[in-house]
Amino acid sequence: MANSKFEYVKQFEQPDSLLPNTWIVVRLDGRGFTKFSTKYAFEKPNDKRALDLMNAAALAVMSELPDITIAYGVSDEYSFVFHKSCTLFERRASKLVSTIVSTFTAYYIHLWSTYFPSSPLSPPLPSFDGRAVTYPSVQNLRDYMSWRQVDCHINNLYNTTFWALIQRGGMDGTAAEQMLKGTFSADKNEILFSKFGINYNKEPEMFKKGSVIFRDYELVEPETGTGTKTIKGEEGGNSAVPEVKSKSQLEKEKKARTKAKIVVEHLDIIRDEFWERRPWLLSGKPGKVKVAKEP
Amino acid sequence: MANSKFEYVKQFEQPDSLLPNTWIVVRLDGRGFTKFSTKYAFEKPNDKRALDLMNAAALAVMSELPDITIAYGVSDEYSFVFHKSCTLFERRASKLVSTIVSTFTAYYIHLWSTYFPSSPLSPPLPSFDGRAVTYPSVQNLRDYMSWRQVDCHINNLYNTTFWALIQRGGMDGTAAEQMLKGTFSADKNEILFSKFGINYNKEPEMFKKGSVIFRDYELVEPETGTGTKTIKGEEGGNSAVPEVKSKSQLEKEKKARTKAKIVVEHLDIIRDEFWERRPWLLSGKPGKVKVAKEP
Amino acid sequence: MANSKFEYVKQFEQPDSLLPNTWIVVRLDGRGFTKFSTKYAFEKPNDKRALDLMNAAALAVMSELPDITIAYGVSDEYSFVFHKSCTLFERRASKLVSTIVSTFTAYYIHLWSTYFPSSPLSPPLPSFDGRAVTYPSVQNLRDYMSWRQVDCHINNLYNTTFWALIQRGGMDGTAAEQMLKGTFSADKNEILFSKFGINYNKEPEMFKKGSVIFRDYELVEPETGTGTKTIKGEEGGNSAVPEVKSKSQLEKEKKARTKAKIVVEHLDIIRDEFWERRPWLLSGKPGKVKVAKEP
Amino acid sequence: MANSKFEYVKQFEQPDSLLPNTWIVVRLDGRGFTKFSTKYAFEKPNDKRALDLMNAAALAVMSELPDITIAYGVSDEYSFVFHKSCTLFERRASKLVSTIVSTFTAYYIHLWSTYFPSSPLSPPLPSFDGRAVTYPSVQNLRDYMSWRQVDCHINNLYNTTFWALIQRGGMDGTAAEQMLKGTFSADKNEILFSKFGINYNKEPEMFKKGSVIFRDYELVEPETGTGTKTIKGEEGGNSAVPEVKSKSQLEKEKKARTKAKIVVEHLDIIRDEFWERRPWLLSGKPGKVKVAKEP
Repeated sequence: MANSKFEYVKQFEQPDSLLPNTWIVVRLDGRGFTKFSTKYAFEKPNDKRALDLMNAAALAVMSELPDITIAYGVSDEYSFVFHKSCTLFERRASKLVSTIVSTFTAYYIHLWSTYFPSSPLSPPLPSFDGRAVTYPSVQNLRDYMSWRQVDCHINNLYNTTFWALIQRGGMDGTAAEQMLKGTFSADKNEILFSKFGINYNKEPEMFKKGSVIFRDYELVEPETGTGTKTIKGEEGGNSAVPEVKSKSQLEKEKKARTKAKIVVEHLDIIRDEFWERRPWLLSGKPGKVKVAKEP
Repeated sequence: MANSKFEYVKQFEQPDSLLPNTWIVVRLDGRGFTKFSTKYAFEKPNDKRALDLMNAAALAVMSELPDITIAYGVSDEYSFVFHKSCTLFERRASKLVSTIVSTFTAYYIHLWSTYFPSSPLSPPLPSFDGRAVTYPSVQNLRDYMSWRQVDCHINNLYNTTFWALIQRGGMDGTAAEQMLKGTFSADKNEILFSKFGINYNKEPEMFKKGSVIFRDYELVEPETGTGTKTIKGEEGGNSAVPEVKSKSQLEKEKKARTKAKIVVEHLDIIRDEFWERRPWLLSGKPGKVKVAKEP
Repeated sequence: MANSKFEYVKQFEQPDSLLPNTWIVVRLDGRGFTKFSTKYAFEKPNDKRALDLMNAAALAVMSELPDITIAYGVSDEYSFVFHKSCTLFERRASKLVSTIVSTFTAYYIHLWSTYFPSSPLSPPLPSFDGRAVTYPSVQNLRDYMSWRQVDCHINNLYNTTFWALIQRGGMDGTAAEQMLKGTFSADKNEILFSKFGINYNKEPEMFKKGSVIFRDYELVEPETGTGTKTIKGEEGGNSAVPEVKSKSQLEKEKKARTKAKIVVEHLDIIRDEFWERRPWLLSGKPGKVKVAKEP
Repeated sequence: MANSKFEYVKQFEQPDSLLPNTWIVVRLDGRGFTKFSTKYAFEKPNDKRALDLMNAAALAVMSELPDITIAYGVSDEYSFVFHKSCTLFERRASKLVSTIVSTFTAYYIHLWSTYFPSSPLSPPLPSFDGRAVTYPSVQNLRDYMSWRQVDCHINNLYNTTFWALIQRGGMDGTAAEQMLKGTFSADKNEILFSKFGINYNKEPEMFKKGSVIFRDYELVEPETGTGTKTIKGEEGGNSAVPEVKSKSQLEKEKKARTKAKIVVEHLDIIRDEFWERRPWLLSGKPGKVKVAKEP
């Protein structure tokens, strides 16, 4: 067929499958969001509507891609985690990244008017870029998540103080920046409290901790200790041979996941407790579906 | 700082810069568009509104990313080409792919209501995936473009005949498929003409040729032959040393590009003529800005 | 300087550092060794001199590259393992592979006359190719090692029977091949014993198990259980943060390694025992240096 | 079969095929050759025996791998070039690099005693590392070759002057280094001539230009101009579709290559003339075999 003469160009596609048995993190970031947030007059230091929109878009991504285990968002960035056993799209980096970024963008644009009803979008439109990183061990993955949450904390404490100095203290940006140069956390807490009566600890959890999204099953009591094992002893099983699950098994697990409610929380994901009580996050096996509480 | 303990996880990011001095093609494809086109009742075999929307989104991508030289779209796919000298985002594959896919998606969603005013979008939303491929030579690049346009032609002739058999001939899908099995182009042309009085050559150019988007400068007369050289003899220059352009030079070229009108056309991009008359596409140097014609 | 005009070509070197915190296996294979073994009349099914030469070359590689933890060889192939924390050559794949392959080849050629004193080498000379693979978990690594040793066993049992049929049974190659088609291990053992009085279990360990090379420290008693933990619970430690060892610490460990004797053994490396009694192999920390026994 | 349980580990091998239609350069470098050259008392600034040995090893590599088009060596490094159309080992980087490095090392060790008959090798043995780089255009490739030859010139002029100051001028290393700091080529030429009566231009070509190895066919007269086209207009052909050569065609070309004598020369490879007169180097098509001259 006439086509074949040119078809050789397909040979130039280079494979980009990510190493098996590693945790895949796809992180996306808003492009030029400083300018964008000015254009739409985002509240400083945090605009609840903007964060809620980010969370809504991320929630939609998780609904459409049940392979995602957990997601963590702060400011204009979001990280999505695939379990190390995930084989979605043969683990091709560009396919995973582009699918997540595109789906996220689609919902961000689509839901914009829900969160900013009085500020219709106009070009240039908001957009996101993304990349995939692999982590070989649970500890690496948890350290990645911790890294993002520590970053959230550091930035939010800084921004809260910075904008208090400007908005309530009447300083300009340069003066505020100068004042905060070289200060420690304790100093910033002190400035907030002594100057403005703000107790940083009472700031909204979403601002201080960021947002974590996951499928919600029944929590496991930490004293049973089973959670701990799952986290620390990831090689506790007797083989790393990729478990060949039957189609019906996979189908069953997929259904279990679909049933589980996806929740957006603002929790500490650095300490063990979060992971110990939710062993399904690291085991990759669906937990026990929550029974609806009596109303 | 507290952050540093976890910051080591950044070391796991693997570089993905594409080989210098190669043409970069980023192609995106609609995800699950068969189902999607059914949901929104796209006309068969071609829905002009859907194609116009694809073109509008691609045009917006080209406006926001002046580094893109040319784009070619057919059906639910679009290819964007960066000149081999492009250094945008240090040529990082994931950044290039995700930025294009995200920007395209943003406009596709945003402009949807313009093209489908009576069919508001609802979840699951349309999305796209993408990948980057590099081509070392102009000929490889042109063969890639030809490959996509030949594909467009083959698919469109098939689909036009297939749907004629169904919509006008009253066949069902299976019967139509059976009838077309093993036929050549000439056979399909004959079926269209003898059974339905359709002259395939008179079908809309957009359906037959797809859409090509580029910055429009003054055409170069082919007989001067200068175009030819630019295309075939890409090494005609005396060095491949990456031309170090001064900032002002780059700024000037960027301005020239910004001034040029971006057009959507439906032309033959397989034959030399298209490229010879538009030497700026392969040379990477802006052409002569078109003077507006007398009204 | 005149040089700078061309120096841009360095930009085309693509980085190839292997993912941190993964086990690196470099495997090399003899090129065209079927032909080569015929040329030098290697004994069939195993030539002890040829295997001893492989082991001597591998031992030299381990001496020159103390970062190698363990090596396993069979036939004309050898696998070298770097601990997951290894940072040698910034973990660049091509540098690791080429260095090992070159050093191995150098000793293979240099020591040839020691093992084949009456068969001087002549062109074309023996050579090896190699590749690097990374494994994220201890289990993956151990499964890799098991894979090679099982392969050794299967091939050796086959070859031993095949050559017995030819050398002692007077068959030709085709007949022997035909006879072994579809047989199981038990069948081959039976053929060996009933036809030739060979008890396969009494064949030399080097032929049945291949060769494993490592630094030899005092064995750990398995009942203490500390070994087990090291192997299974690789995340037992409280952080995956790459331990930043002081220079003096690194120097000390290097010395400890240099003191340890490197041994060539023919042991079962599939079962836990091998690894449990030698926890230094997986922990990456030197063991307790063996005290020389009374003479 | 028992094997299958572990065989999954093969999935961790990542593909590393180099981009099609690009020139592949494999460069190897001596490891720790400063120390090595001291151990064997190499003459300074150039040891003819050591360079001849490098050349002999490279020549053997080219004989065993007819896919190599040209090689260039200087000091303890050697670059081997594969034509952009080469498909050897499916263009896998690690296979190409390890094969070349291993073959080179084998001959270096094997031929050592020919060039250093009175200095038998002893551990640690010399070894080499290597890497592969791809170049999309002829100009990039030629610039790579020029880069190495300019490097050769700069280093050799420096070293010649440096060692003259020491060996004939009685300076120590520090004083010589100090004296040469900031000097230009003309200055060094002047020092050599005025102080030691050395005319740098009369130094051996091998030292000044390095060594270039290639298959020698009949030279093409530059005035015919056909050479020029081949070099500059690499896209002169009407398609980049990988020429599918018949097996007999490939066999024929291989034979033609085998017949051609491989020569070691010390020529200027920066100027066009070298390439224009030897069009087979860049075209990839064997030239006209030289007719033996009358004796």
